[in-house]
Amino acid sequence: MIIQPSQEIQEVSVTFLPSNRSVKILPGESLIKAARNAGLHINASCGGSGVCGKCRVIVEKGDVEGAKTEKLTDEEFAEGYRQACISTISSDVTVRIPEESGAKGGVLETDVPTRHQARMHVFDLDELKKAGIFDPPVEKLCLELNSPDQSDNKADIGRVVHGLSEQYDRHRIEAGLDVLRKIRRVLREKDYLVTVTLRQSVNDRSKNQLINIQAGCWSHRNFGLAFDIGTTTVYGQLVDLNSGRVLAEAGKYNAQISYGEDVISRIVYAEKGDGLQEMSDLVVGTINEIILKLFKTAAPPYGVTEDPIDWQEINSITIAANTTMTHLLLQLEPDNIRRAPYVPVSTFFPPFRASDLGLELPHHTVALLYPSISSYVGGDIVAGVMGSGMYRTEQLTLYIDIGTNAEIVIGNQDWLVCAACSAGPAFEGGGITHGMRAATGAIEDFSINPQTYEPMNMTIGNKAPVGICGSGLLIIVSTLFEHGVLNQSGKFNKVDTPRIRTGRSGYEYVLSWQGDSGVDHDIVINEVDIENFIRAKAAIYAGAKTLIEEVGLQVSDLEQVILAGAFGSYIDLDCAMTIGLLPEVDPTKVVYVGNGSLMGTRMSELSNHIRKDVVEVVRKMTNFELSEVKTFHDQYVASMFLPHTDMSLFPNCQKRLAAVINGK
Amino acid sequence: MIIQPSQEIQEVSVTFLPSNRSVKILPGESLIKAARNAGLHINASCGGSGVCGKCRVIVEKGDVEGAKTEKLTDEEFAEGYRQACISTISSDVTVRIPEESGAKGGVLETDVPTRHQARMHVFDLDELKKAGIFDPPVEKLCLELNSPDQSDNKADIGRVVHGLSEQYDRHRIEAGLDVLRKIRRVLREKDYLVTVTLRQSVNDRSKNQLINIQAGCWSHRNFGLAFDIGTTTVYGQLVDLNSGRVLAEAGKYNAQISYGEDVISRIVYAEKGDGLQEMSDLVVGTINEIILKLFKTAAPPYGVTEDPIDWQEINSITIAANTTMTHLLLQLEPDNIRRAPYVPVSTFFPPFRASDLGLELPHHTVALLYPSISSYVGGDIVAGVMGSGMYRTEQLTLYIDIGTNAEIVIGNQDWLVCAACSAGPAFEGGGITHGMRAATGAIEDFSINPQTYEPMNMTIGNKAPVGICGSGLLIIVSTLFEHGVLNQSGKFNKVDTPRIRTGRSGYEYVLSWQGDSGVDHDIVINEVDIENFIRAKAAIYAGAKTLIEEVGLQVSDLEQVILAGAFGSYIDLDCAMTIGLLPEVDPTKVVYVGNGSLMGTRMSELSNHIRKDVVEVVRKMTNFELSEVKTFHDQYVASMFLPHTDMSLFPNCQKRLAAVINGK
Repeated sequence: MIIQPSQEIQEVSVTFLPSNRSVKILPGESLIKAARNAGLHINASCGGSGVCGKCRVIVEKGDVEGAKTEKLTDEEFAEGYRQACISTISSDVTVRIPEESGAKGGVLETDVPTRHQARMHVFDLDELKKAGIFDPPVEKLCLELNSPDQSDNKADIGRVVHGLSEQYDRHRIEAGLDVLRKIRRVLREKDYLVTVTLRQSVNDRSKNQLINIQAGCWSHRNFGLAFDIGTTTVYGQLVDLNSGRVLAEAGKYNAQISYGEDVISRIVYAEKGDGLQEMSDLVVGTINEIILKLFKTAAPPYGVTEDPIDWQEINSITIAANTTMTHLLLQLEPDNIRRAPYVPVSTFFPPFRASDLGLELPHHTVALLYPSISSYVGGDIVAGVMGSGMYRTEQLTLYIDIGTNAEIVIGNQDWLVCAACSAGPAFEGGGITHGMRAATGAIEDFSINPQTYEPMNMTIGNKAPVGICGSGLLIIVSTLFEHGVLNQSGKFNKVDTPRIRTGRSGYEYVLSWQGDSGVDHDIVINEVDIENFIRAKAAIYAGAKTLIEEVGLQVSDLEQVILAGAFGSYIDLDCAMTIGLLPEVDPTKVVYVGNGSLMGTRMSELSNHIRKDVVEVVRKMTNFELSEVKTFHDQYVASMFLPHTDMSLFPNCQKRLAAVINGK
Repeated sequence: MIIQPSQEIQEVSVTFLPSNRSVKILPGESLIKAARNAGLHINASCGGSGVCGKCRVIVEKGDVEGAKTEKLTDEEFAEGYRQACISTISSDVTVRIPEESGAKGGVLETDVPTRHQARMHVFDLDELKKAGIFDPPVEKLCLELNSPDQSDNKADIGRVVHGLSEQYDRHRIEAGLDVLRKIRRVLREKDYLVTVTLRQSVNDRSKNQLINIQAGCWSHRNFGLAFDIGTTTVYGQLVDLNSGRVLAEAGKYNAQISYGEDVISRIVYAEKGDGLQEMSDLVVGTINEIILKLFKTAAPPYGVTEDPIDWQEINSITIAANTTMTHLLLQLEPDNIRRAPYVPVSTFFPPFRASDLGLELPHHTVALLYPSISSYVGGDIVAGVMGSGMYRTEQLTLYIDIGTNAEIVIGNQDWLVCAACSAGPAFEGGGITHGMRAATGAIEDFSINPQTYEPMNMTIGNKAPVGICGSGLLIIVSTLFEHGVLNQSGKFNKVDTPRIRTGRSGYEYVLSWQGDSGVDHDIVINEVDIENFIRAKAAIYAGAKTLIEEVGLQVSDLEQVILAGAFGSYIDLDCAMTIGLLPEVDPTKVVYVGNGSLMGTRMSELSNHIRKDVVEVVRKMTNFELSEVKTFHDQYVASMFLPHTDMSLFPNCQKRLAAVINGK
């Protein structure tokens, strides 16, 4: 189920001295990454861009590539010095970390256990096929038809429908005006060799729609789009519907964001004058921009050939969003979503014509929107439950989707309960001074020298840091806390480093000085950021704990935990448990699916079975209003600490903290 | 089945002297009509407008109203003289026809049998109800819903769907964007009292569409449109879908007519440049004009109240047309309809949004098009077969629809065969010098003085004649032939009357001198008109005869004959058999349904059962290509006489001719 992206590629071995610790790593990775995986700290504040020059190591055996900037003299290079962050490992190598770069006394080497990362659950097409549910709802079928004669002069569309029945066992087919208006010419253009685009109905009882017809055979070109519309960010994928391959992925901030960071402020705006239309136009604009970007960045081959994808070849789009975002996209009045008893306009949606929604897609393209459960448990979470296979598993599963709102689902194939809690946008970079979404230059991993408190910043794309993404924030707070830089309340202790100073929002820690960063200022994290972060994690933890207890279970009953959220490429489980975001569970039970909503929409593009099942699943999901569960507020208040007021809930965290303190 | 429009009204008795023949007639009719019904001739060439003054009669007992113009002096009026054509009968009356007005010697009185008219089959809603198939596909349902609270906060649309299920047992409901976008406000406007417009799906397996929602209770206002689009004329009806009542009917020439009188010339035009778009625009324009006219002329009450109908209240439109007209309306390329092997683009059509077809109707209005059988057996004939109940009867039925093309269907509930033959537009007034469609001023009945050959013209609306409609043409030709004015080849015999003269197209008979007519010229019928007429009737007769024989039957096997065609308010069966349009059958077997296509569309507006059955019926109908049946051409040539070359096929006609000749 958990796929290592390139299992077949031979890993190479990196040995670090003086600790003599070895790790296996994929060729192409950097030495700093290898050190991180080995649990070793190397000072590095420029995010792997080679600018700060602090991460010098000495290669003692083997060699690495590209590990030099003007920060190293030719003499040093000849002596074996390399810059760890910009090195590329291609074969076995032994490297010494000099005292000035590493942590003194090998403390880290001996006392900090290897970190557990919940690896990305990579979408597995074979798994779909094995389960017999790989059946893209839109299929393209080539037909060779006989030309009409005296004894067979059925109508053009009748000929095609007959062919689909005879050659592909497809029945109950209906064609709209677009197809009828061109079918005569198309049939005769390549002597009755045609390709039809067929949209299977979502329910077995309705007709299948013949949405397009082309002259010649084009069945190898069948593309769809999967979209997750978040309050903060919108992500899209361009999918090859024959192979299931993701040809491109792109994300952008939701353009509505300038009208408020949370759903409530968007609703307030939408209630006034043309606000609803404006909100819709903004998000539609964002989607259209992402679509253009997907076309530009799609990696060939595109359905066997290298011919660029024409927008006319997009046959379907599946969209998941929270209930408010769905309402704003469709221009449904969201007014009552924010007013008790929180009544949305609709939770189910029929298939729409994508162009009717303002999307710049061909007239035949169908848009499917994921149904939602309630005003605060939206189609995004339903998409995650569907896409992750939670609804099909026997295992008792806790599913947590971390976004501006966090949603929690507990259950399995037999029952499902869900709840939403307002986490705030911290994990998406919102409300954090230098927060950003998981994009190039975002600090996504971090370590600290326990003596000097110098940082090791690792960024997405190994560029100079420009901000902090969700997964980075998690690791930074956890690491600062573990090393006594932060106390249990999230306030800075008085430790001796110039990196801690008084800023505009109280005390702050400088992750990257301006000169080492990719922006024109220092990159910091301050106490207000940390407070926002703690609020977010507390809401999620309290929500999960409350829901588990409401259904009469305990954390130890969980057989699987699925984490979702567009906050980075992986999640560090030790950190997540150290700061009390997650209850302490066996790390092997945890998978991280990244953007679960996006995954669910992609799965829907590839499996009509999932589309069919979703109605039943939504009916089955029981919604809890946390605000009405008495214990929730107490749980929340108790969770507003690192990791929690009740440390007995986090025994491993306790041990780790003790080890660090003893290490000093 | 055959309804006398006002059965409950007491008929009055009119006795004519000197023949002493009496007829019963409805109050309000004219004396000339009564004479016609009695088989008596009164000279009258002005169509009942009172202009010619030739129809003077003397009232001997009782009286009539309004029977005087300046053509009668006060003295004459005092003596009892009245103008028969403008008289109104309101009570029993005895009238003498003076020699100068009537036929001499009482010939008509004694020898011409009473005419058999196939009376209009008036659409019977009770019949639909009795058969359990009165179920308008679009229904309006009032719902009183509970307002949401903490324990019941389902989505707005969910509340309505739930209400439809609980209160009306309606399930499987889907709503589109239009409804979703307004439902929040509408629900709350009248405190959760709403009216939904529900479109039942045509097939049981698809979802029912919630197409509109209104605040308050509006179930009594539910209107639909029924349209027949002929090559020559377009007819529409505005129907109250609750009562089944026709609120208005209107017709107009199809605006395409300036591009050719038959389907072939329309197709030729549509093949060039923007021709198809133009053809579509033209007929759509005609439909839109008729819709406006229907609104203007609709007779109150409109669904209980007198409030005028708003165009937003039109919920559905059903359209029937021949295959070419259907293609042109939908902008489907008709090119192959005119080329062997005559392949249309489509014979089945999904429901369309009426506004997508260019119709000036609300966005929620659904347009249903009748399916057709082949390029030359169209949706109009299918509509007739459905609307007349032919598809549900056990009786072996011959159905003939007379239009620009004539279609013939034979069969019953178990089997159906059909064929089309090109009759030409004569019966709709096309190709006839002074032909016109059945509208005010059209001569629809006719009699001739056997001595003087003076005419009795009776027009629709009793206005001065402006032309000849189809049913009038039939009677005129038959009467001229019966009285020896025309010979068996349709040429004028040399009879002594100034009304027969040489015109621009050979010999012609003057039906109405300019002064007596409602136009600025004489109204005539000439030999070219008669030739066109004979061609038309020959094609129809030969088609019916051929089809009957192809399925191994004889005329005598027929248990029912249904005549359809928009050529007048009734059809004279004796005339139809005299000139050889119809095979000689027992007149009681014949019903005339007028515009069968229009009737079928109205029935579809009122019965979803009929919509559901139509697919099966169309599948069952076997199409014969007459041009490929060897005997057809011979039948046609043999039918190019009055009534036929083989007089033994028309024994009654033979008898009648003999009687007239003996009478002279």
